[in-house]
This record gives sequence, C-alpha cells and structure tokens, in this order.
Amino acid sequence: MKLGLVAHPKKKEAIMVAGEVVELVHKMEQDGKDISLVIEKELRDVLGEVRSPGASVEKMAPRIIICIGGDGTLLKTLQRTALPVLGVNVGSLGFLMEIMPKNLKETLEELVAGNYTIEERTRLKTLLNGERLPDATNEAVIATSTPSKIQEFEFYIDMGWAQVLRADGIIISTPTGSTSYALSAGGSVLDPRLNALEIVPIAPFRINSRPIIIPDQSTISLKVTHRARTAQLVIDGTFRKTIRNRDQLLFTRSKEKTRFVRFDTNFYRKFQEKILKERPPLNMKGKY
Amino acid sequence: MKLGLVAHPKKKEAIMVAGEVVELVHKMEQDGKDISLVIEKELRDVLGEVRSPGASVEKMAPRIIICIGGDGTLLKTLQRTALPVLGVNVGSLGFLMEIMPKNLKETLEELVAGNYTIEERTRLKTLLNGERLPDATNEAVIATSTPSKIQEFEFYIDMGWAQVLRADGIIISTPTGSTSYALSAGGSVLDPRLNALEIVPIAPFRINSRPIIIPDQSTISLKVTHRARTAQLVIDGTFRKTIRNRDQLLFTRSKEKTRFVRFDTNFYRKFQEKILKERPPLNMKGKY
Amino acid sequence: MKLGLVAHPKKKEAIMVAGEVVELVHKMEQDGKDISLVIEKELRDVLGEVRSPGASVEKMAPRIIICIGGDGTLLKTLQRTALPVLGVNVGSLGFLMEIMPKNLKETLEELVAGNYTIEERTRLKTLLNGERLPDATNEAVIATSTPSKIQEFEFYIDMGWAQVLRADGIIISTPTGSTSYALSAGGSVLDPRLNALEIVPIAPFRINSRPIIIPDQSTISLKVTHRARTAQLVIDGTFRKTIRNRDQLLFTRSKEKTRFVRFDTNFYRKFQEKILKERPPLNMKGKY
Amino acid sequence: MKLGLVAHPKKKEAIMVAGEVVELVHKMEQDGKDISLVIEKELRDVLGEVRSPGASVEKMAPRIIICIGGDGTLLKTLQRTALPVLGVNVGSLGFLMEIMPKNLKETLEELVAGNYTIEERTRLKTLLNGERLPDATNEAVIATSTPSKIQEFEFYIDMGWAQVLRADGIIISTPTGSTSYALSAGGSVLDPRLNALEIVPIAPFRINSRPIIIPDQSTISLKVTHRARTAQLVIDGTFRKTIRNRDQLLFTRSKEKTRFVRFDTNFYRKFQEKILKERPPLNMKGKY
Repeated sequence: MKLGLVAHPKKKEAIMVAGEVVELVHKMEQDGKDISLVIEKELRDVLGEVRSPGASVEKMAPRIIICIGGDGTLLKTLQRTALPVLGVNVGSLGFLMEIMPKNLKETLEELVAGNYTIEERTRLKTLLNGERLPDATNEAVIATSTPSKIQEFEFYIDMGWAQVLRADGIIISTPTGSTSYALSAGGSVLDPRLNALEIVPIAPFRINSRPIIIPDQSTISLKVTHRARTAQLVIDGTFRKTIRNRDQLLFTRSKEKTRFVRFDTNFYRKFQEKILKERPPLNMKGKY
Repeated sequence: MKLGLVAHPKKKEAIMVAGEVVELVHKMEQDGKDISLVIEKELRDVLGEVRSPGASVEKMAPRIIICIGGDGTLLKTLQRTALPVLGVNVGSLGFLMEIMPKNLKETLEELVAGNYTIEERTRLKTLLNGERLPDATNEAVIATSTPSKIQEFEFYIDMGWAQVLRADGIIISTPTGSTSYALSAGGSVLDPRLNALEIVPIAPFRINSRPIIIPDQSTISLKVTHRARTAQLVIDGTFRKTIRNRDQLLFTRSKEKTRFVRFDTNFYRKFQEKILKERPPLNMKGKY
Repeated sequence: MKLGLVAHPKKKEAIMVAGEVVELVHKMEQDGKDISLVIEKELRDVLGEVRSPGASVEKMAPRIIICIGGDGTLLKTLQRTALPVLGVNVGSLGFLMEIMPKNLKETLEELVAGNYTIEERTRLKTLLNGERLPDATNEAVIATSTPSKIQEFEFYIDMGWAQVLRADGIIISTPTGSTSYALSAGGSVLDPRLNALEIVPIAPFRINSRPIIIPDQSTISLKVTHRARTAQLVIDGTFRKTIRNRDQLLFTRSKEKTRFVRFDTNFYRKFQEKILKERPPLNMKGKY
Repeated sequence: MKLGLVAHPKKKEAIMVAGEVVELVHKMEQDGKDISLVIEKELRDVLGEVRSPGASVEKMAPRIIICIGGDGTLLKTLQRTALPVLGVNVGSLGFLMEIMPKNLKETLEELVAGNYTIEERTRLKTLLNGERLPDATNEAVIATSTPSKIQEFEFYIDMGWAQVLRADGIIISTPTGSTSYALSAGGSVLDPRLNALEIVPIAPFRINSRPIIIPDQSTISLKVTHRARTAQLVIDGTFRKTIRNRDQLLFTRSKEKTRFVRFDTNFYRKFQEKILKERPPLNMKGKY
C-alpha cells in the first residue's frame, strides 16, 4: 500500500509529525509490511528525506494521502486530488481531521490491515463566465470586497426564480461545509448523507432572509449587481478571485467527490463534541 | 370528471364560496361538460344541496378534491385523503392554497380541460408506541404541556446518535412545513423537491442548538424525558395527543404522498410574495 | 446578625444542606459569634429543629435570607421578600445562585465579618386589569394556552405605538432575566446595570420580528386578541394566571428591588462560565 | 433664521432638490420671512448660486442644516457638526431622513414658524491608541480586512471582563445604529431613549455568541489579536482605518450629541414602516 504524505509547509508541529510518519513507515517497511511512501515535493525537501520519492499532490498517485495540519491544509489538499485523504490534526479545531498525532502508529497499522472506510462527500462545482474553478469541499463565498459596505446579489435557482439580496455576502455550502462558515452565518446543520446545497446570506439587509436548502443537482446562477463595488469569490478559504458586475457565476454539484478515510463514521458525535463542546449522553448506542 | 367538495364547516365565507362552486358545476354540467360533484356530507346538509350526492372525505373517491378555507382546513382534509387537493383560499395567509375565490370559474374550466399538474409532496409518518398516527403534510410538534415550563427530550437519528435537548418543544417538519411553524422557530427554507426532514428546537435552553436537516428515509426516535411534566404531540395543528415519560415516538417519511393541484408550480415566487411580502424582481424568467 | 433560612421543601439535597446550615450557625453562636437563625416554618418542621424560631418568609425579618435550591426556589422566595437573598446552589445550572454547599462554612464567616456586597436588581411590575400581581425578578411570559396554536397580541409602548404580534408567546424580561428564558427565545444579553426591559417574541409568525429593548420607566400595555383562545401569564415560572380577550396587562419597572448578596460581582464571568460553558481568558483583570 | 444647505455632491436628484430649496428660500426671503441660507461650498459651486454665501459644514454656523441625500450623506454631515440636521430623503431607504422632497415648501414654513422639535441622540466616541477619531451616530465596525478570513478580537467591558471572539467582525452600535448594520448582523432594536450601546458579533465562530447591551457610560476596550491579519475600522460607513495587532481601541459615549430636526417623533412607527414594511394598526394613538 502506497501512502502519500502532505503537511502544512510552515507549521513546525506539522513538519515534526510528518517526520514521525516517515520513520514509522520505514520501520514497518523493514518489518516486512506492505507499505511505502511518496512525499509531497516541498515537504520532502524540508524533511531532507531521501529514502522515499517526492511528487506533487496531483502526481503522487497513492492509495491514501495522509495530510497533517488543520482544516485549511486539508481543504487545500482536497482541491488538488480526489483520492482518499486522512487528516491528522495539529490545528486548533480540526473538525474535518480524523486522528490525532498520538494515534499515528496504530492508525498506520489499521490502514495496512484495511480496517478503515472511505466516506464520499459532495463537492461544489463553480463556473465563472464558463470557466471551471476549483471544486469546494466546504463552500464558496461571495463577499463584498469592502468590509462593512453592503454588496448586492441577484441569484436564480434552476432559472425559475430570482432573489435580489443585499448583504455582506452569500455562502453556497455543501453538507460538509454546513458546520463551518455557513453555521456561523446562521445556517442549519446538514446531515452529510443529504444530497443538498445550502444558500446562506451573511448579515442580510432584509432581516427576514433565511437560509435556503436546495437539491444539489440544482443550478444556482448568481451575479453581483452593485454598479461600483466588486466582490471576492473565495473557495474553501483558499482560492480567491475578484468578481465584477458583468461576471456570471454558476454553482452546482460536482461529479468529483471528496473522499475521507474514516475509522469512526459518526458525524453527529463529532459535531456534538467539536462544535457544541458537549459530551454526548452515555447510553448512545443500541438503545432502541 | 368527478370533483369532491370540502369546506370549512363554520366559516360563512367558505360555505358561500362552496355554494358558488355547486352552481358553477351544475351550469357546466347542463352545458354538456364532463363534470360532476360529490359533496362532503356535513357541508351538503349545510348547503341544503340535493342534486349532488354526499359522502365523507374518505369515501367520496373523486378525481380531485376542491377544498375551501385556509391552510388549517386543507391540512385537515389532507389527513383524510391522498387524492389531489386544490385549495381555494378564504383564510388570511393561505400559503398552501392555490387559487382565490374570484378565479373559480376559469379554474373549473382549466380542470375539465386537463390544464393542471399534480405536485407530490413528502408526508411525515408518526408511530406512537408502535401505533400509527395520522401522517403530517407540514409537521409534527412535541411541546411542553405547561406553557413556559421547559420540557426535556432525547432523540436519536438512525439509532446512531443521541441528543438531549431542553426546550419548549421540538418540530419535525417536511419541506412543505419548512415555511410554516418551523420557520417561526428559526428553521431554514427547504426546497419542496428535497428528500429531507428538518428538526427544529423551539426556544432551546442551550443557545447553540441549531436546526438539523436529515434525509427523509432516516428514522427519528424520540422520548420525552422530564420525570413529571407531560408533552403535547400535535400533527399539522389538528391532531393532538398527550405524551408521557414512557412513550416512544418514531418519525420517518411516509409511503403516502400529499398531492396538490397546481397551475403555477413556482414555489419560490409564492414564498417571496406570501412570506417575505416582497415583489419578485421583474426579469424573473428566462434571463439566463 | 439574624439570618433567615429557606430551602426547596421537597429536594432531599436542599434539606440536607439546610441541616448543615443549622448546625454551622449553632456552632458559631456557641463560639460567641453574633449570629442567629430564623427558619421558614415548613422547613423547620421538616428539619425537626427547635433551637431556632420559625416564621414565614414574609415575616422572618432577618438581615439576609439564605436560600437553598435552584433558580426556581430563589425566584419563588424573591416573590415574597425584598430583603437580600443569598443563593446556595443545589440545582443543575443555578445561574442566580452565589455559592456552592461546600463553601457554606467560609460563607457564614464572611457574612458575620461583613465581607459581602448587596447588588440591587430591577424588578418588573405587572398590573392585570388594575390589580397588582407579584413582581418578577426574571420575566413575565404571556403564552398561548394551547401548545403549537398561535396566539395574537397587541402591545403599546408608552401609549404611542402599537405592534400586532402573532406568536407562541411574548416575554417581558428584566436584565436579570435576559440570560434566562429570553435568551432561549432569541434575546440579547442585558448588562444588569442597564435600566431597561426587553420584549422578546417566542416563535413569531412574521420572521422579521426582533427583540426590542426599552427604558424600564416605559409602560408596556398588552392585550391578547385572539377571539377564542386564552393565554397563560407566567411570572418567574411560578405564578400562573389565565388571560382572556378582554383582559388588560400593564408592565413597568417596580419600585421594589431584588437584592442579591454577592461575594463576586462579576456578571460577565458568571455568564461566560455558566451559559457559554467557556473558561474566560486568563489575563482577565487589570490588563489595560 | 439661517439655514445651512448640504447635499450629496454627485447625486443628480440631490442637487436638483438643493436647487429647489434655494429658490424656495429666496422666495420666502423676498416675501419678508426671517429666513436665509448658507450653502456648503462645493455644492454652491455646482449650483452656480451667488445670492447666498458659501462655507464648509464646520464653519457655516446656521440654526439648522438641511441635508439632502440618503442616510450615508446624513451620517457624513453629522461627523462634521453637532448642529441640528434635517434630512431630506432622495435615497432608497432613508431611515434617518425626516421628510421627502415633495414636502419641502411646507417644511420650510414650519421651520420658520418654529413648529419642530430637536431630538438628541447618543454618539459613540472612539479612541485609537489615545487619538480621538470621528464620533459615530450609528456604529463603529471592526471587520476582517480579508473577506471570509476570520479575525480574532479580545474585548473588555469596564476593564472587568474579557471576551475572546473569533468572527468576521464586531459592531459597536448606538441605539440609532441598532436598526441599521447591527440589525442585519442579528442585533436587537434599541429604543432611542435608552442610554445604551450594543455589541454585535458578525458571523461568530462560536455560535452561542449573542449581542450584548451595556450602559453607554461603559468603556469597551478592544484589540485585534490575529497575529498576521489586519482589520478595518469603519465609522458610520464613511471613515476607514486599518487596525493592527498592537493597536488599542476604546469606545464609549461621546459628550457630543447628534441632533435631528423632527416633526414626527414616533420612532416605532418609522421602524415599522421602513424596516418591517408593515402598516401599523389603525387605532394606534390614544387607545388606552
């Protein structure tokens, strides 16, 4: 089993943990386990590692990519691959991350033993004037370029209905993104199994504006309509582009999927522990 | 084409409009149109109508039921039939109602000409201790029996996750109900095409509680856990039952559907006009 | 210093802690400290205590009343006295409670030594058809008597403006109550020093309804306007009265105050710890 | 009575209406009325008006300033004067504006006759590293400079309590501003008579964050704590400054007041008509 290795290139702790992965894998390899590594080029240089080959995320072609960092590092990696990714959390919240660094050894053993599942999640596809931009695992945000100056949007769902919205911004979120920025802006929590997208206004001028949940096969067609001000399109907090008056944006479900390596598939428990900061009740399983 | 006729039995205006329907249908029948009526028994007596037969909603077996009143009358009728229903609004908001009394004549002609569509909507199935209760077109509410005294709930989604909730109540809503009580309690708007249910807490004690949207094949298993206080289960605002500590409630999508007769299928325009009280922008159709 | 002693009459733990107070006070008395007890009559019987006299809350006339229970017990006691009350928490949250049972001994010593402050809080005065009802420390709620059936309200602020509100209920809250029921229904947090009242709708039909904060010298004049349904007026969760169509309610600041015995006067820290469940940052004091 | 005249310098309609004011005043002057004009310099040039003198807003020293434009024009003018200002609305909403252009003639006559009141409103004072910035009539916003990248704040109320907040931004609003940006971000409506400030987070990461209402004599001490990202301080949407990691902001009530010329003093009616877009009930006055 070939594993890819990616880490936040500037976080000391991420690089240190990446070093541990390298040592653990080489140890396992020497012990005769079917395991090998390909390391993201830049990280390979930082680590000064020569035993394993280097490659870009796009070209490393492993069975699974191990990604060390926080949600941001993971989202950036996911923009460059549709292969299964396993998040190792060295960030503050790490809602998308599956394991902690202290569990590395047992995790590698479980991977080799095949004791994991792959969870597929919907991605959001974005077209800007017909040109395809990177898919989003969490969300696309279109926000005023001038903080605290309202922007105007006009959007259509499946070409049949228009809404004019004056707001700081608008979020188009996948179920995966519903526990992230969309939640802060007042959105609902979407079960990850749901084939849906969520449209959430940020600080809307008309206070009766509410989040709207639509089927993910729907197409959202959106324009920024303020005559003078531009907007920023931000995909998963990493890809950024200026949007003008004449630009046309289309959003819908991507054919590509995000693939997470999972040992624990319970979305709600993670939500409760990480977002609500509550312990779930004890008698949680098999009660009924 | 046989039409059923139902009206709010105590609203003067509803009964008057029902009288108009009777006259219009008889006129069309005499003119050789393929149209006939069966009238809900109690209404038939009130109208003193003898030319058309009477029957209960369950037994009238027409092609379409014409229902005159407000959303409440319509919801009550829908609890008794899965046949297509056409709402004639004499209520205040009438979000679910399709036409106004002034359009009766042209409506009947369109029906006979077959110029309408049937829109199917998801219904919510409720089991109380294994016993099936009426389906909901909008929502099931479980609320404290004692106003302003908090109730405690424990619920599971697909048996895999429990949440303990202290709140005035909890709403389990279909997409159809998402613009009704669930919206008032802070829910999102669900596109009616979405195969989803929405769980919305009413005045939750923990203020980080948020609405949750789940696939409608999911099963919600719910208990009221306050030792002393009972709760009221209310289905579509009409069916009411006291729930105790030991009772077990199960909610999921029903196999039955609600069927609305539609001339205008645009959900979002209706939402904008009736709930947001805004005129949609002019260039609404065919823009892109 | 004469102390009054009140406890939740049915909670075992409250009665046990009351017993401890009795023993501690008698011990201090024997040690020559200036301290004595008067015990709420019913509690005195339950404790079988004969060394200290008994009296109703209204007649005990001590310097300070020690109240053992949860927020509910405290609110009930406050409806019967304007004397300073010290809450000992044996309830679940106890936002209004000042100390825990384990700190009883040192607390009694601080009281005798005069090391405490009295914090005055605004009370809400209620007139029903001109008749004065008990004051509220937290809030008055007027809610539909029939769970999930909307009620209609009409209210005036200082006779100059009317709002018609359709909702499950309406909360008139003091700053003290702003972290309680009003918060669950979507209200803001009011600094306890603020001379203000907060009006919060519960699940309003019109989703652009928002909490309104007004000066506490203002008069709110309110009527329930649904023709058929009654409402429940609930004061501090304890006093309850049915309200009809013709009844007129007036709310304003009371001349009476609620008096809390405080050792720690920091409202915001308590809010953060008990409601937000977050530890305040370490460098909290004297930073600037 | 000397009137000042200010208008949005680039809005055609505003300049046209300013021309009308000039003509009306000269007519009244010729008719022997005690009325005269001083025109904002730039506007005087645009109008090519020579009969009345020109001056900057700061130096014109009239009894009342007539300001033609929208809320933005008014707020900008108010940053330069504490004299009473009368807003003439040629903007879209104009919540702060008192009259419409069609009522100009009668308005000028009422002014000369003394039939108006002056309403004083609280202003917010801002100190940046000890340097005084312009006062705000509505609000000061501190928002992330990079749209959709979260900012971190630390703030203290009266030096006694700290909150760490991760959010898009934070709004410090006067009662006047509570129906503006603060409302869009989820704030409550503050009665303009209230001596209070409102602190509202914009899209907070922790979803249990709520608006806080504090006495306006309180001091809010605030820092931006993200190590790398700057923030934008925006006062009344017009004054803008970049804030860094080391900067210290202090907010409190200003000694200066905003003064509005009023013919109709009913705040709530204006709120209902302009924000809620509802007609107030008919029997609004003198009912009780």
